[in-house]
Amino acid sequence: MPIRILVTGGTFDKEYNELSGQLYFKDTHLSEMLRLGRCRLDVKIRTVMMVDSLEMTDADRALIVQNCAKSPEKRILVTHGTDTMTETAAAVAAAITGKTIVLTGAIIPYAFGSSDGLFNLGSALSFVQVLPPGVYIAMNGKCFAWDRVRKNRERAEFEELPEK
Amino acid sequence: MPIRILVTGGTFDKEYNELSGQLYFKDTHLSEMLRLGRCRLDVKIRTVMMVDSLEMTDADRALIVQNCAKSPEKRILVTHGTDTMTETAAAVAAAITGKTIVLTGAIIPYAFGSSDGLFNLGSALSFVQVLPPGVYIAMNGKCFAWDRVRKNRERAEFEELPEK
Amino acid sequence: MPIRILVTGGTFDKEYNELSGQLYFKDTHLSEMLRLGRCRLDVKIRTVMMVDSLEMTDADRALIVQNCAKSPEKRILVTHGTDTMTETAAAVAAAITGKTIVLTGAIIPYAFGSSDGLFNLGSALSFVQVLPPGVYIAMNGKCFAWDRVRKNRERAEFEELPEK
Amino acid sequence: MPIRILVTGGTFDKEYNELSGQLYFKDTHLSEMLRLGRCRLDVKIRTVMMVDSLEMTDADRALIVQNCAKSPEKRILVTHGTDTMTETAAAVAAAITGKTIVLTGAIIPYAFGSSDGLFNLGSALSFVQVLPPGVYIAMNGKCFAWDRVRKNRERAEFEELPEK
Repeated sequence: MPIRILVTGGTFDKEYNELSGQLYFKDTHLSEMLRLGRCRLDVKIRTVMMVDSLEMTDADRALIVQNCAKSPEKRILVTHGTDTMTETAAAVAAAITGKTIVLTGAIIPYAFGSSDGLFNLGSALSFVQVLPPGVYIAMNGKCFAWDRVRKNRERAEFEELPEK
Repeated sequence: MPIRILVTGGTFDKEYNELSGQLYFKDTHLSEMLRLGRCRLDVKIRTVMMVDSLEMTDADRALIVQNCAKSPEKRILVTHGTDTMTETAAAVAAAITGKTIVLTGAIIPYAFGSSDGLFNLGSALSFVQVLPPGVYIAMNGKCFAWDRVRKNRERAEFEELPEK
Repeated sequence: MPIRILVTGGTFDKEYNELSGQLYFKDTHLSEMLRLGRCRLDVKIRTVMMVDSLEMTDADRALIVQNCAKSPEKRILVTHGTDTMTETAAAVAAAITGKTIVLTGAIIPYAFGSSDGLFNLGSALSFVQVLPPGVYIAMNGKCFAWDRVRKNRERAEFEELPEK
Repeated sequence: MPIRILVTGGTFDKEYNELSGQLYFKDTHLSEMLRLGRCRLDVKIRTVMMVDSLEMTDADRALIVQNCAKSPEKRILVTHGTDTMTETAAAVAAAITGKTIVLTGAIIPYAFGSSDGLFNLGSALSFVQVLPPGVYIAMNGKCFAWDRVRKNRERAEFEELPEK
């Protein structure tokens, strides 16, 4: 069961630029993280973009949707900044059916020793293998339907919304 | 949905004893790992034992089975050494029905910077939430039915056995 | 031989703010770093300020000089941002005699797994114990007289200036 | 001022063998540690042996002495297990004059996240640059003359012996 991983940036992949003292994007850490986790799944990684999700445009979201659509794999993991993760999930859900698509990210960059990234990656890769078609967000060890979740910015965690 | 975590030791929780220069067990790292992963699941941790799985006896296995049986939670995660993880899984499967029980562990101790433990914990906690009742082993990003898996000792990874 | 450590901030002590996604200062990591290094020196830590050295004012520098002056210890370590470390060293050298004062810092924050901070701290604490009175900068494993060094910003390292 | 680094093993360089679950020696981490510390000193690394210092023989010590003797560099750092570091220091001191030789090591392996190795390396490399000829042990942020120090095994730290 091949899994497609689409990398879009986010805190997950932020690094420290020692020349400027700022955080920035260089390359994704996904391959290194999968090696560390000794993951033996059949995954194909594609870096779609490397952006802060606060700066993600509609065109960026359209590109992510397009990548989900054309992927032959039925199971897709999207790494994404947490600030607008639910917006991208909604855009994907509006356009794609018949695939299991899980978005995940991190609150602390992987390059920091104290990142939640490896935990979230293990979690998201597991949910994407067993959940039925649909769009989900995997954070904090939980999995939420795309339209039943929001980021609580004061607590930097995701929480379930009541059913409509 | 409360989840019971039963800690039994294994590589997961091995630490370096600076006085003797040997690896040993002190306390479990489970709480620290859940905090790092920013896990917000309702989990209850119980340390059943802290042993190397190569030294696990039939009495130890009986104690693990007993803890699975008396746990009111229907979803149980067992952290365990990798060397005899399949044996304990078999003992649990022979005695327990109607619960989802996932065993996981690590190839490298969590206290080492390069551990696979956090990835495996995120993975196992996710599988245990969504799989139907049964006994499973979650390692290498995969989830195996307890009677369809073995540890490949040359590669230090778990692999699926052909269906009987 | 007691050693005074004056903390002024700098990359050394920057942390990741998970709510804003920015780097910021909370508390100094000096005590934790000394514990990790198993340092058994008689040190007294005083946090004078927590600022980015690019934002350090003349008043800030005067405060650092004043702390060096009034410290009864003859051996003083100052942790400092690298960008204006040489300016503060010059201010200290213009005002203080009869004490061994070593400035050090880091190119990567300590909270990142890949920091040079622990190496630099071990280095600076060693130089400050054995060098004669004067003002020095300890970076990159080397120790420079305060008026014979500059930061090479393209390489993010310190280099010796030719003797005048 | 070139510095010779002689690697002999010790806790410094122990790694976790994921197949056996034991600690063992593979390659030295010295180059990686110097890179992490952004060390810009002119150092030449030579791996003389990779052994646990409890298993070090007289022949091993003779080989270390011989390497110190034939090294053209006048400043030499020896990485060494802590358990018999003072014995090797005595052997070197009995045979070599006119060179500054500093032994150092670690209480926790570098491959563990919590190692004191990087701190000790920064410290020892600094002492070796400025101390007069002689044989020293650099541990716990301090530098001891070879005949004035012992390892306190209950506390896993080095302490000064009273002058004879």
